[in-house]
Amino acid sequence: MPSFELPDAVAILKADGQRVVDYFRAFLARHTSAPPRLLESIDYSMSAGGKRLRPAMVLETWRACGGLDGSASAPSALSAATAMELIHTFSLVHDDLPAMDDDDLRRGRPTNHKVYGDAMAILAGDAMTTMAFDLIATDAEPAKSTALIRELARASGPEGMIGGQVLDMEGEKQSLTLPQLQQLHRMKTGALLTAACRMGAIAAGADEITLSAVTDCGRHLGLAFQIVDDVLDVTSSPEQMGKATGKDHAKGKNTYPSLLGLEQSKVEAHGHLRLALQAINLLGEPAKGLIALSRFVVEREL
Amino acid sequence: MPSFELPDAVAILKADGQRVVDYFRAFLARHTSAPPRLLESIDYSMSAGGKRLRPAMVLETWRACGGLDGSASAPSALSAATAMELIHTFSLVHDDLPAMDDDDLRRGRPTNHKVYGDAMAILAGDAMTTMAFDLIATDAEPAKSTALIRELARASGPEGMIGGQVLDMEGEKQSLTLPQLQQLHRMKTGALLTAACRMGAIAAGADEITLSAVTDCGRHLGLAFQIVDDVLDVTSSPEQMGKATGKDHAKGKNTYPSLLGLEQSKVEAHGHLRLALQAINLLGEPAKGLIALSRFVVEREL
Repeated sequence: MPSFELPDAVAILKADGQRVVDYFRAFLARHTSAPPRLLESIDYSMSAGGKRLRPAMVLETWRACGGLDGSASAPSALSAATAMELIHTFSLVHDDLPAMDDDDLRRGRPTNHKVYGDAMAILAGDAMTTMAFDLIATDAEPAKSTALIRELARASGPEGMIGGQVLDMEGEKQSLTLPQLQQLHRMKTGALLTAACRMGAIAAGADEITLSAVTDCGRHLGLAFQIVDDVLDVTSSPEQMGKATGKDHAKGKNTYPSLLGLEQSKVEAHGHLRLALQAINLLGEPAKGLIALSRFVVEREL
Repeated sequence: MPSFELPDAVAILKADGQRVVDYFRAFLARHTSAPPRLLESIDYSMSAGGKRLRPAMVLETWRACGGLDGSASAPSALSAATAMELIHTFSLVHDDLPAMDDDDLRRGRPTNHKVYGDAMAILAGDAMTTMAFDLIATDAEPAKSTALIRELARASGPEGMIGGQVLDMEGEKQSLTLPQLQQLHRMKTGALLTAACRMGAIAAGADEITLSAVTDCGRHLGLAFQIVDDVLDVTSSPEQMGKATGKDHAKGKNTYPSLLGLEQSKVEAHGHLRLALQAINLLGEPAKGLIALSRFVVEREL
């Protein structure tokens, strides 16, 4: 147990989330010659709420590695966090399309294509991707921008999030083993959560040992996060989740509860949380926000 | 008229195109842990041929600004050119989707979603975007990568290509004036062609005056290119174009021929070509490939 008091994770998510939304809005306002309805569609999904876990992970890892508000590295951390949320949100907008998961509800509101039509939802998602990279290339410190972009691009590409979505889609037609399911989740959600930690550390100018520690933390949190998500899909209501639940089972998706059972899934999630916290033990008190967020990932509604 | 002999544009397109395809293939082969069918779908569209005009513009502008094969700047130019082709190809894959233009034929072959399904085509397009930025962040010279990424991201985003696609979609329902049509094309195709020239210059380490000159060249070529494309949609067969023709009129799209008539459209295209060539006059003989390409844009089948 840490010797310092932990802050409230919900308060951190709220504060960090608000900073990212403010930063995003200011960035959006720079696009004076873009079609208004495209910007509206992008803003609709970016403002729809959600936990803002990924951008908060960027900012709290940055703080854990010595990043301070108002310092020279703050624009690197804030642009990285906002870009991370843009990439996460684009993936949700495309994932909800009729040709993909065909969802009507997201973050408690009608999905983007339900409001703006399929074509605009496709283009809005595409635009969020290019905006994410533009934002870092424009606002981050020059010495850090390329490394930040590389992290984000790899984590979202064929060997990361998008590759994981393909595995997920292909997996619906067959039974996966536990190692296959873990590989799927390492890519689909783990890569981006790991990148969130790494980008926070890079923004703070962390050394190799620290970067390695937060990478381990991110990997374990990524696995824990997905196990908890699978469990909540079984045990929660759509109102609690802000999206349809029970869909995994209905679609024949491979999940941790279906492979391990509910109780063992919870044990696994707590095991990964322990390893995540162990990895960042060396960071001490500046990591208190990151520790609080890590616990939140596993303990949110279990 | 230049005092030096101009090379054959078709030979340049073929040689530059082959280098970009080779570079892309080597990059794709680095993705050893990605789902094979996703890579196959990406490769299908990237290998489908096409003119390779945009990547050739990057490479020929790089040469026009003093870039030499085998020099330190070659990886910057090649990664920029390949990333440019990835972005262009992703936009075609998404544009062809049933929710967008609903095309069955592209570059003379069935469109991506006709072969791999809508979901994979969406994800393949998404992956091409992230790969484009990963490629530059990984391979370009560190001092140039951020500027290259910024150019590509802005030119493809809400104020560039994607914004232009939205205007195009919205314009189908109404009559546009000539200035509105020009604004649409400046964004939809002009931004990426201008970025191709600028990225070539940035890769070569060009000074501000040279960058400004190739920017003017790219802008005029972008407008000329779209005028010629509109004209060819009226005057060519699907076999010549490798895609459906006569679609603009059928969909009630605003085009230069519909606003200006065929003959006046050709006059405008040649006017923009003249201004494009005037802008790069100061570059002399190293620009001979860029000059040949510029002429090809306007004279290809007029």
